Parts: sequence; C-alpha cells; structure tokens
Amino acid sequence: MADRSTDIDRIMDPDSVAIVGASTDETKRGYQAIETLQEGGYEGDIYPVNPSADEIRGLEVYSTVSAIPGRVDLALIVTPAPIVPQILEDCADTDLAGAVVIAVGFGEAGEDGQELEDEIVSLAREHGIRLIGPNTSGLINVHRSLNLVGADTVPEGNLALLCQSGNMAISLFTEAATRAGVGFSHYVGVGNEADLQFHEYLSFFDDDPETDAIVCYVEGMSDGRAFLEQARDVTTDTPIVVLKSGRSDVGKRSASSHTGSLAGDAAVTDAVLEQAGVVSVERSDELLSVANALSSLPSADGENVAILADGGGHATLAADALAERGLAIPQLTDETQDNLQDVLPDAASVVNPVDVAGGTDEDQSVFVDCAEAMLADPNVDALMLSGLFGGYGIRFAEQYTDVEIEVADDLADLAAEHEKPLVVQSAYEGFDTDPHAVLRENGIPVVESLDVATASLEALATYGERVAAATESSDFQVIGTTDTAETISDALASGRTQLSEFESKQALSEADLPITPFELATSPDDARDAAASVDGPVAMKIVSPDIVHKSDAGGVALEVSTEAASDTYDDLLAAAHDYDPDSQIDGVLISPMADAGVELIVGVVDDEQFGPVIMCGLGGVFVEVLEDVAFRALPLTEADARGLLEDIDAQELFDGARGNPPVDRDAVVDLLVSVSEFVEANPSVSELDLNPVFATEDGVEVVDAAITLESDGTARVDGEAPISRGTTDD
Amino acid sequence: MADRSTDIDRIMDPDSVAIVGASTDETKRGYQAIETLQEGGYEGDIYPVNPSADEIRGLEVYSTVSAIPGRVDLALIVTPAPIVPQILEDCADTDLAGAVVIAVGFGEAGEDGQELEDEIVSLAREHGIRLIGPNTSGLINVHRSLNLVGADTVPEGNLALLCQSGNMAISLFTEAATRAGVGFSHYVGVGNEADLQFHEYLSFFDDDPETDAIVCYVEGMSDGRAFLEQARDVTTDTPIVVLKSGRSDVGKRSASSHTGSLAGDAAVTDAVLEQAGVVSVERSDELLSVANALSSLPSADGENVAILADGGGHATLAADALAERGLAIPQLTDETQDNLQDVLPDAASVVNPVDVAGGTDEDQSVFVDCAEAMLADPNVDALMLSGLFGGYGIRFAEQYTDVEIEVADDLADLAAEHEKPLVVQSAYEGFDTDPHAVLRENGIPVVESLDVATASLEALATYGERVAAATESSDFQVIGTTDTAETISDALASGRTQLSEFESKQALSEADLPITPFELATSPDDARDAAASVDGPVAMKIVSPDIVHKSDAGGVALEVSTEAASDTYDDLLAAAHDYDPDSQIDGVLISPMADAGVELIVGVVDDEQFGPVIMCGLGGVFVEVLEDVAFRALPLTEADARGLLEDIDAQELFDGARGNPPVDRDAVVDLLVSVSEFVEANPSVSELDLNPVFATEDGVEVVDAAITLESDGTARVDGEAPISRGTTDD
Repeated sequence: MADRSTDIDRIMDPDSVAIVGASTDETKRGYQAIETLQEGGYEGDIYPVNPSADEIRGLEVYSTVSAIPGRVDLALIVTPAPIVPQILEDCADTDLAGAVVIAVGFGEAGEDGQELEDEIVSLAREHGIRLIGPNTSGLINVHRSLNLVGADTVPEGNLALLCQSGNMAISLFTEAATRAGVGFSHYVGVGNEADLQFHEYLSFFDDDPETDAIVCYVEGMSDGRAFLEQARDVTTDTPIVVLKSGRSDVGKRSASSHTGSLAGDAAVTDAVLEQAGVVSVERSDELLSVANALSSLPSADGENVAILADGGGHATLAADALAERGLAIPQLTDETQDNLQDVLPDAASVVNPVDVAGGTDEDQSVFVDCAEAMLADPNVDALMLSGLFGGYGIRFAEQYTDVEIEVADDLADLAAEHEKPLVVQSAYEGFDTDPHAVLRENGIPVVESLDVATASLEALATYGERVAAATESSDFQVIGTTDTAETISDALASGRTQLSEFESKQALSEADLPITPFELATSPDDARDAAASVDGPVAMKIVSPDIVHKSDAGGVALEVSTEAASDTYDDLLAAAHDYDPDSQIDGVLISPMADAGVELIVGVVDDEQFGPVIMCGLGGVFVEVLEDVAFRALPLTEADARGLLEDIDAQELFDGARGNPPVDRDAVVDLLVSVSEFVEANPSVSELDLNPVFATEDGVEVVDAAITLESDGTARVDGEAPISRGTTDD
Repeated sequence: MADRSTDIDRIMDPDSVAIVGASTDETKRGYQAIETLQEGGYEGDIYPVNPSADEIRGLEVYSTVSAIPGRVDLALIVTPAPIVPQILEDCADTDLAGAVVIAVGFGEAGEDGQELEDEIVSLAREHGIRLIGPNTSGLINVHRSLNLVGADTVPEGNLALLCQSGNMAISLFTEAATRAGVGFSHYVGVGNEADLQFHEYLSFFDDDPETDAIVCYVEGMSDGRAFLEQARDVTTDTPIVVLKSGRSDVGKRSASSHTGSLAGDAAVTDAVLEQAGVVSVERSDELLSVANALSSLPSADGENVAILADGGGHATLAADALAERGLAIPQLTDETQDNLQDVLPDAASVVNPVDVAGGTDEDQSVFVDCAEAMLADPNVDALMLSGLFGGYGIRFAEQYTDVEIEVADDLADLAAEHEKPLVVQSAYEGFDTDPHAVLRENGIPVVESLDVATASLEALATYGERVAAATESSDFQVIGTTDTAETISDALASGRTQLSEFESKQALSEADLPITPFELATSPDDARDAAASVDGPVAMKIVSPDIVHKSDAGGVALEVSTEAASDTYDDLLAAAHDYDPDSQIDGVLISPMADAGVELIVGVVDDEQFGPVIMCGLGGVFVEVLEDVAFRALPLTEADARGLLEDIDAQELFDGARGNPPVDRDAVVDLLVSVSEFVEANPSVSELDLNPVFATEDGVEVVDAAITLESDGTARVDGEAPISRGTTDD
C-alpha cells in the first residue's frame, strides 16, 4: 500500500486527473467537468473515461482507468452510486492515489446505502486508493486551476475551505466574490467522510505554502477526537476557524437528514475546539472575515483593544460590540493621551475609544499620528480603526483619496512595526476604494460590518491566547488500557456495569480522590457504631444496585444523631423494600454531614463525536435551571482544569459572594485532574457523576458518586495505545 | 405662539429655507448647503442670509432673516455657536417655524456651552421657533430633495432615520447605497435634543405618507418616558426600530463624551422599549434590514417560522439562527409534508426545515409549489427562503433567470394571499439580479446574510406580538400626585427620606400588600408576647433608622423560640449598640418564619431616562451572581406583570423544579401590580426594595422591605397630572 500522506499530496495537487463517467452530452457533469478544467486552464493531464466514446473535447477517451497509459493521480467519479465498486475494482493494479466520489445514495440514504458505502471503502483500502466523499460536491485547487466542482469562478486567495455542504461553499464563494481581499487556495467537499476525514486534510494545508488559514463548515465529524489531536498541532502555525451547524435541536435534526452525520452538543463542541486552539464562530457571516484576519495578521498578545474612530457613533458601537465579546477597552497611558491631544481638536475624546471629532476631516494623516501613539501604547494589544476611512475621497473631496492612500501605507507599516493586529472597519468598504486596496495588499483587512470587524478582533485575541496555552493543554490522547481500580475489575467480572454509590466511592477512594468519609453498615448496630465514630450528625443512604434514585425511594436520611442511627437503619430498609420489594439491599452508607459551601457537579461522559469529556458546573437545583456548566476533553492538564473553572459563569460564587470566604480553587483543580487520571486509568468507565461536590475555603469534598461502565467492558481496552475513542474506522 | 405640531410639519417639509451664514467661499458649508439644494433639485425658495454679501449662486442674499420678504419655514444656521442667540433674536417677529443649528460648543462642551444652549432654547421658545440640534449634522427630506446635511446621495425609500451620530448616518446611507431595496424618506440628526426631542418626530413620521418605518440610532434620550408614551401609539401603524448604543460601561463612557447624553442600563432600555412595542436590535448591521422588513411586510401572527432551503447547510444554519433567537421551527402538518413529497425528490427533507435536495436545480417553479404548501400550513406564521434563489441563472444556466423572475412574482403573490411574511436570503444578493428586483418591487426583502435575515424574522414575530399586546400594556402615565400612605407623609413631615423596615412594611400593609405579619416589640416582654402569639419559631430583626444593613450589625435572629425571645431581644439591642453606639433603636420586629419557596427580589427604581421602572428576579445569592432579573416601566398592567415574569430566565423555578410544586404565578402578578399601584399612589417613593419575597404554591410573602423617598418629597408631586418623570423640559 502506498504512503497515505503522499497520497493526500497527489490528491490535493494532482498532475493528472481521470474523469470517470465522461460524457459527450454537453448538459452532463461528465462533459462539463472536462470543459471546466480545460477552460479554467488546468495544465495537468486530463483522461476522460467512458467505455463507449472515443473523443471528448479533443481528448482521447479511455474505456477504463486501468487502460490509461500514464500515471493517474486522481479520479473524479461522476457515475451513479452502484457502478462505483466496479470502477474501484478496475483500479486495483493502477497507481491511482485517490478518487472523488460525487454520487449520492450512500450512507446518507439509509441501510442499503451504508452497505454500498462500506463496500467502496473496503475496496478502496484494499487497492490503496483514498476516497473523498461520497456525497461530495468535489474538490478545487484554485492555484492549479483544478476545479472539480463546476462552481462559478472561485476567488483565488489563501484560505483552504473544508465544507460539508455544497451550497454553503457556493455562499462562501459568492461572498468572497463580492468582498475584496478574500479568496481560496483549496476547497474540499468532505461529504460523508467515508474514508478521508476532516482531520486528515489539516496537515496537508498546514504544509501548503498557498494556505494561511483553514476554514471548516462542519455539520458533524465522524472522528472529532482525531480532529482535536491534529488541530492542536496545526493551529499554532495555521489558524483553523470552524462554523459548526446543528447547534439547536432543530438544526441537529436537519443536519442529520442532510448528511447523516453526528451533531453533538454545541457547548461541548465549542469547549473542546477552544481547548485544541481552534477558533469557533457562531454566525456564518463572520466565518470568512475572521479567517481572513487570522490568515494575514499577527495574533494579539492579549485582549486589550484600542478603538480609533472618526465619529462618536462608531466609537461607542465598537466599544459595545467588543465588550459584548468579552474584550477589554483599556485606558491609554497618559503619554498616549497627551500625544493624541497634541494632534486632535479639543472636542476629541482621547480616552479609549478615541473619537477624532472632525480632526481628520481635512487632514487624514492625523490618523497616522493617532495610530502611532496608540500602537506604541503598552496597554494596547490590537487596534481597530472604525468609521469612514478610505471614503474621505467620496465623502469630502476627491483629492483626499491620494492622501488616504499614503495614510493606508503608513498605517500598515506602523502595524507591522509594532507587530500588533490592525482591523479597519469602513462604511465605504462596498465602494472598493484605492486606499482600501493598499491596506489589503499589506495584509490589513477592511470590513464593512462593525460587528463582523469586532468578531475578527475577538478571534485575533482568543487565537493568540489559545496558541500560547496550547503547550500546557491536553494532547487529547487517552492512554489507559487496563482498569486499575479493583472495584471496577470486580464489578465487570461479576457482569455488572452500574456501580452502587458505595462501590463508586470505593473505586474513587482507591485513587485518593477527596471523598467524604463513608462506612457501609449492614445492621442497625453497625449503623449506630458508625454514627458514633463521627463527630456530629450523619447522613445515611441506602446501598442497592437496584435503586439509582435513592431520594425517590425514601432511602436517604440527613442530620441523623448517633442515638437515632439504628432506628433510621431499619426505616431506610423498610422504605427501600416498599419502593421495590425485589431490590437487593447491600446495606446503608454512613457519612458525616458535609460542610456547606458552593455546590458543584462534576461529570464525565463519552461524547459521540469527541470521546471522553469532563463537565463541571453549579450543582443543586441550578444545574438543571441554569445549566451553568463548562466542558473539556480528557485528559485534563492543570491548565485545562483552571480554564474549565474559569468558563463557569458564576465566578462570584468561587470568589466568595455575599461575604462568604473564597473557595479553594486549587482543590477543585486537583479534583478535576484526579478525575481525569482516574478515567484514563480505568478505561471501562463510560460515565461518572460526582453530585454534589461541596467546595469551601478548606478544600473540596465529593458527597455522592456514581460510575457506569461500558457494557462489554472493553470501551478503550483493546490492547492498543494510544487510542482515540469515538473513531468510526477502527 | 404657533401651533407646535404644525411647526413640525413646516420644519420637516418646508416650502422655504433660509441659509444663515451663507458664504461665497466654495469650500464653506454656507456655500455648499446652497449648492446641494440647487443641484439636488429642491423646488422651494432658498434665501441666503449674510450681512456682507449680495448674491450667491444667482440668489439674492439678505442681511438678516427678518429682512426676507417671503415667509420662511426653516432656517439652517451654519454660523459659529456664539452668534446663534442674536440670529434667534432677529427672528422674533418673523413666522419662522424652526431652525437647524449645526454648530458645536453647546451642552456637549461643558458648563459654558450648557449656558449658551439654555439661552438659545429660551429665546427659541420665547419667539415660537422650534430647534433641531444644536450639535446636529442636519436634516434631509429625501422626497423633496431637501438635503441640509451635505451628505452623499441618500437613497430614496420609506425609512425615516432619527440619528444621534452624523457618521452613523453616513454609514447607514452607504449601506443602503450598496444594498438594493433600502432607502430613506427623511433624516434628522437630533443632536443635543435641546428643544425638539426624539419623541416629537414620531407622530410626524406616523402621519407621513412617505414613511413606513422609523429607524432610530440612540445614544441617550433626554426624555425617554415621553418616547415610550409616543412610541406606544405610533408603533401600531408605523414600526419603530431602535439601535441603542452605550450598552457597555465603556460604550457609555464614550457616548457621554460624544453628545453628553444619558445612557441608561441596557437591560432596562431593552425591556421598556419592548413594552412600548418598539423593536430593538443589538447589532448595527441588522438595523436597516430589520426596519426594511417591517416597513414592507405584514407582521407574523406568531413565532413559528418555516424554512425552505435549497441545501442542507442553509437549512441547518437557518434553523440554528432562528432557534438561537427564540423562534420556533414547527412541525408541518401531514398534508403539507405529503404535498412537499409530491413535488420533491426522495432525498429531500419535508420536515421543517425543508431541504429541496436538488429538487429545484432544473425547475425553480418547484419553489412555488413548496411555498404554496408551506404558507397554507396553519402551523406556519412566516416563511424563510434560504440559499441560492435569484442566482440560478448565474449558478446553473442563464435561461433560468426568466423562470426565476416568474417564480419571484408567484412567491410574492402567495405571501400576499396568505398575509404571511416571506423573507428571502440569497447568496447572490450582492449580484442584484432581476428575480431579486421583482421580489423587492413586491415588498419581499432579499438579504445576503443568513443571520441578518433571521433578525428580520425575529423582528416580524416580536413586532406582531407586541402590537397585539400593546392594548393590554402600560400607557406609561404615572398619575399619582399626593402620597396616600400615612407612614410616608409622616416620615416626610419629620424630614426623613429613608423608611425603616417597620415603616416600610406599615406603608405597604396599608395598601394591602402581602407582607409577612409583623409586630414591633419595644421591650423583652413585648418580644416574648409577640413570639407567643405566633405558631412556631419567629424571626427577630432590629429596627433602627440608622442601621440599613441589619445582618451586618448582628441585628437579625432567625428561628427563635418563644422561650428565647426576650433574651434574644436583649442580645439584638446589644449587638446594635456595639455596631453603632449612636444608633437610635426603635425596637425589634417580630415575624413568623416565612415558608421557604422560590426566593425573589422585587424593586422599583427611578431610571434617569425612563422614570419609574420595576424589577423582579431571582433573589438570594443569585441576584448578584446571575442577575436573572427583568424590568418594566410603571405603571404596570396585569399583562405587563405576566410578561415581566416570563422574561426571567429561570422559568423552571416557577414551574416547580426538582419535583417542587409550581409557584402561584397569579399571586406574584398581583404583588407586582400592587407595587405599581402603591408607587403611583405615593409619588414621593423614589426607591422600593422587597428582598426577599418568597413565592410558593400557596401565594407570595414579602419578608423584608425598604422604601426611600425623594429628598425634597416632591418627585412627582407638582400638582399636575398626568406627569412624566425624567423629562428635562418641565
């Protein structure tokens, strides 16, 4: 079998293409594909393949791919689905690197389609051929004029586009066509990801000299965990921007009827992509502008943005929009303010946001003076110029255009000199003026929408932070292969997958997690002795493999005194028997009452796209009502754990609201990392639920715990390491 | 004095204009203003005014306004600020209706400027002249070709623009110039609102046949309460769309340095504007598209949107974006789904969102069949067509353009027939195609951004709801003139403005609000007797005009038994003495312990822009941490109160989270309305704080209360009714 990474190079940048299903009918894709390649100026070899034609558009037609005399890098297969297997069979002894399978009627179309998809994947692997699709709109290498999509002209540029919807691709192409300065290096319709998956394109684009940023429109990834691993490496050099659809329940329904792909929880997706250093956008109209800004600008060292506006309205709206996105609008130094005051009229505002208040109406070079002062300010990480720049020649007097061209040059130089990103928002963007062209030539994006411009600044700030954080973040490789907790091995050995609270706490205690002390009493006397050994009243809870919701069964008693413990034991057993006469009762768990504090919930789930993911958030009634929780993919570094805590909205509760002492954050961080290590060390754990966890100034205590195991006990125990969970092709 | 409403007609639609400060210098505004009027084709009389010129651009120049022989409707004053008073003096005996004062250097420039501003307002009122500005960019009546701004060509259309930033106006003009189908009837730069205020333009635009919607860019209103009153009436016929800047703290800082205007809390502004039937947008790039949609489409009867997309990507993203905005994507009826299945290929999705899956590639009239079925569906209130429509002639084959033109006509007819709004999102919007032109001619907006299109649908749905709700909503007139609560009159009589908890509860009890029973004990024996008269333990709280934060002073004891009451009385007094030896102690308040339940906070504040506003939300630690509160302007109708409760995020708490019984919403609604009536009936109340309030299945109980009065006791007690608080000119 050929080297698969070399294959991807040959597929993405082929010297020869076979069009399988070539046609003499001008209305057919099999004709148009050849026409597009010829008229577009593709300089590689084109081999039409059709058993019943001799010549199409001046090219010799071959009956099969195997009949082609030269080496073929890539085949575009435009035949109906059922014929694809025999085409791949025919390629068995060729040196074909890959095939783009346009046809629909595969996995997205139900069971029969899935069978056919499995068949072509198996044939392709057998014969060393990589597949793009099926159910794809195709592939474009813009710089090579290789257009296998039949789309309108695609503007040339430095963005690679990975897309799960052909129409979204067309939308993005038309958007780029009407917005100067944005263009593409490659387009791949990833389709059903039957063979080649999202993540496999990333390192090709990372190495591609024509690509400066990667844009992904994702409905659902078949191997999200592999994407995280790969993205983490790629994004430090080549920013990755993702628009993930199917965020809402209805959107998910639609996405799955579209490509049959998975569509996980939006909150999980956002969190793990961020963890991997990927920039997410929520709005389709921000996608290209954000990617464009990241492709040509240095990232910001922090989130402090200075605003330079030639009007109070833009100054205020820009400040609002940036603040809404969580960016800071820092005070400028006194020196900067003095410098601004020197060049601006008295009416100007020299605090951030800066409003030149007419100071540039007659001399636009004042923008340069202002930008110079602001970019030099140590409090400033990025600069936004907002208002009318580039339109003074239209707004005021034609001769200003020449001045603005010089100013544009100077602004770009200043930004380069200070290595700080500059984003220009202009009401005149749509007029495509010369000063804007100069800015763009120098890598400074010009955006019409104030809101989209602020999205770019947010991305520049967060991307910088994420790349900086990447070295301290998870490598996304879950390496455990054998369960280390004895309680878990024992449970699996006895064929059980749901551990009782007692077993769950035993397993976690073995791993030294901070569990509230507990003792299993199996008689009223036991209960009294256990209660007596505790200072103060105790909590008593029924232990039964058959009773998951202990409170519903009347199986919980709180604040029980030593004197009452033995009677309470009997009461709990009676209540459990009433609730479910057939339930097996293992006894009663006795613990001290936990210190009140901030109530948290910590959990681990196996996300269908991204594998094991940890959640932490506010517990109690508020976990359901407010859903103030945050996520990270496992394994968790300490930095990940801190970031996870910071993502919880109600930070005031940790800092000590209403005069309460602040919570011991380090203890919570330790707990989260320990949970991560526990799950890694016990690969059979598929779900884990610590609820409640109480955090106080003195530390953290897990009061209740529940662990669920994979039913076959082999979730990640298949003898190979490292293993990515959630993959579909292993 | 002339009729002021007639004045506004003469100002907005003048037959004659004086240019005061006219100039022979072509670079001056005083020359360019005349040039713009002449070249724009203004057909009214133009009178240049300048004491030292004879003729400008062929027009006779007058030395003063009073020297003009004809009647002058409007004066554009382009002189420096200090000369404005003498110009107004000169107009004393003329029939001038209004003046546009361009100059800066008034209220926005500090104290001296404010003095000058007060002077010109006083002169203008004395002489019956209304003022626009000062510090305004001017006025445009597009249909009359009256352009007093000197802006670029302003696209003609049906939107009136009220704007507090000249550069924002230019941004909106350029946006309209590059987006087909959007234009303006009038523009007013409201400037400092020294005389004419935001609300005074509304009824002119409501009556104006050229105006179908009103667009406002607001930094801060000087009389927000009057705006609410006026907007409530106007918006039922003429939708009002507001972009309010200064939402963030930094934005507020910037807004006040810009126009010196107020900028209240964004949450209050959003809530009271909604209450008045005004549509707010948060993003500047949504403003025009939303107003345009409202100006030409019927509102939606509900929030159920059907999506018709020619690609799964658009279907999914549209569903996500609509759901994110709180709209519903309803199931279609079986009949609709059958009808869709009849015309669409098998691969299509006929559940909402509908994806035609290639079904329109070769015959776009299928869109008509689909739209017909979907618009007829009783589950559907509005339709969004998303994807490539209008671009099939570009994307596939030229001849499709003619088909699309017919389809556009049919779609518009169907939407009109069903009286349901249809919004078209198309990737080809920027190509300004003929099918799009046909849609626009028929009042169907075509939008490029999917996100902006969903903003329009949200506005159509919420506007419909609001107009429907308007009849049941507040009239914003707070009518009380004399305090009715004796406790309040007594406190004012004794010169006090902060009522103790005891006094606050007395005042509220007089008005029959559901206060937890309370008794004031002034001795240990009193305390014991009071506790004995209550079933169960009691709460005891110190009563002192000098101690506002009772807990901090150790002045609160909970769960006190009858036996412990007298000792506790002594303890509380001792603690209060320790806390503040000079505090006056009136006794100890004794109440039964309140039933636990959902903890709420209810408050009234006097908002600087909008006058008295009520707040209700989650109480306890979460009011500070989560700020899950909602607002309405007083007075409150029952419908307002219900809407207020529904605006609180944590609805699950009201419905009974975690198996708790649902809260008695009616009781909470009654409480809110009673609070509103109480504040109306006691105009000296400037702040009121009920915290906590416990709501249970059995009703609602106010556990603590604090009332603050206006220091001069005459906040709204000035003998005239109805009275709007917060106005600047009464």
